[in-house]
Amino acid sequence: MDFTEALPVWKRLDEYSKNKLAASVLNRKAAKGTVVHSGSIECTGLIIVKSGLLRAYIISPDGREISIYRLFERDMCLLSASCIMKSLSFEIIIEAEKDTEYWLIPANIYKEVMEESAPLANYTNEIMATRFSDVMSLLEQIMWKSMDKRLAAFLYEESAIEESNILKVTHENIANHLGTAREVITRMLKYFQSEGLVKLSRGTIEILDLEKLEKLAKEE
Amino acid sequence: MDFTEALPVWKRLDEYSKNKLAASVLNRKAAKGTVVHSGSIECTGLIIVKSGLLRAYIISPDGREISIYRLFERDMCLLSASCIMKSLSFEIIIEAEKDTEYWLIPANIYKEVMEESAPLANYTNEIMATRFSDVMSLLEQIMWKSMDKRLAAFLYEESAIEESNILKVTHENIANHLGTAREVITRMLKYFQSEGLVKLSRGTIEILDLEKLEKLAKEE
Repeated sequence: MDFTEALPVWKRLDEYSKNKLAASVLNRKAAKGTVVHSGSIECTGLIIVKSGLLRAYIISPDGREISIYRLFERDMCLLSASCIMKSLSFEIIIEAEKDTEYWLIPANIYKEVMEESAPLANYTNEIMATRFSDVMSLLEQIMWKSMDKRLAAFLYEESAIEESNILKVTHENIANHLGTAREVITRMLKYFQSEGLVKLSRGTIEILDLEKLEKLAKEE
Repeated sequence: MDFTEALPVWKRLDEYSKNKLAASVLNRKAAKGTVVHSGSIECTGLIIVKSGLLRAYIISPDGREISIYRLFERDMCLLSASCIMKSLSFEIIIEAEKDTEYWLIPANIYKEVMEESAPLANYTNEIMATRFSDVMSLLEQIMWKSMDKRLAAFLYEESAIEESNILKVTHENIANHLGTAREVITRMLKYFQSEGLVKLSRGTIEILDLEKLEKLAKEE
């Protein structure tokens, strides 16, 4: 796959914009666990995922985490280039959840092209709207959904991502995704086990009843 | 004030765009308590506040509310024109918190101009980034701040908006802003009263110690 295939707007850009972007795009790799971008001060650039999985999260003053969205193949992230917009005033951290390959367009180049190109600026709007919608959906979950339903949704999504019923994820990892304490997750997983939804072993969670998990996840 | 003064991008638009926007802009009024926009289906248009105060909020399936941001004079809201971007997939409600006058640019006109105009598309990006930052800040508060600090911050902001230490706001109103139950607010206000921060009377909250309230609001 070429990076232009991951940019649906490509064919609507003029030659000058195409050349400028194509000449600047970088191929990057990040091993699982690596931090790819951190904070609002650093301006990494625009990230387009080629393969793998990235996780964007925020962190509290005392070190608690919550995932705000995940970036799958062909997903694009502009919050890693927050300097391109002066009104983006929050800090996120992006790390590789799996070994990941991605394209990086340097922020200054992207900004220069976007300022002159209505198609690219409009496309950027759509990308931001997608992430904004992700965060609004997260906000709604935090506000209106109890933690057991959010945990069920996380396990259900995780099993789809891994294409497996056996998840190699620690209770701490899950707590960091969902913005809660490890103890809360452990307690809830034990409850799920007693209800026959999962089977817990050291380092793995086996999903026994995916259907019931999905039902719980989708409850209002 | 003319609506062009509230649009800093105005002078960078071409004549065609200016004429098209100027010909379509509508003057609207909303009395305190009126719903100005509701949901993602309806596509009201772009709102620019001339005077007054609007509140954007979301609502749970069982009717609980939380404010996501407020729009003051000259603030612009494009989530009331979510149809201009197909990736904006969430529903908000906007209501007048005070008697409000605003300009409304119909969504289809704005979209047509934005699609051709790099300056307007980039400006729209900035507007969305501002609202996105508001929501991220709210998310951080919900996740990492206890309700007493959020209540202190709300009372502090409210006293700045009203330019008064006597706030005519019900406990229910506050609960709807902060996304909690009225009982929680009542209990916390009584605690604030016992600490000498406020004085409660029927229908009003008098702030006695603004400095202490501000300090509490800003605590990590």
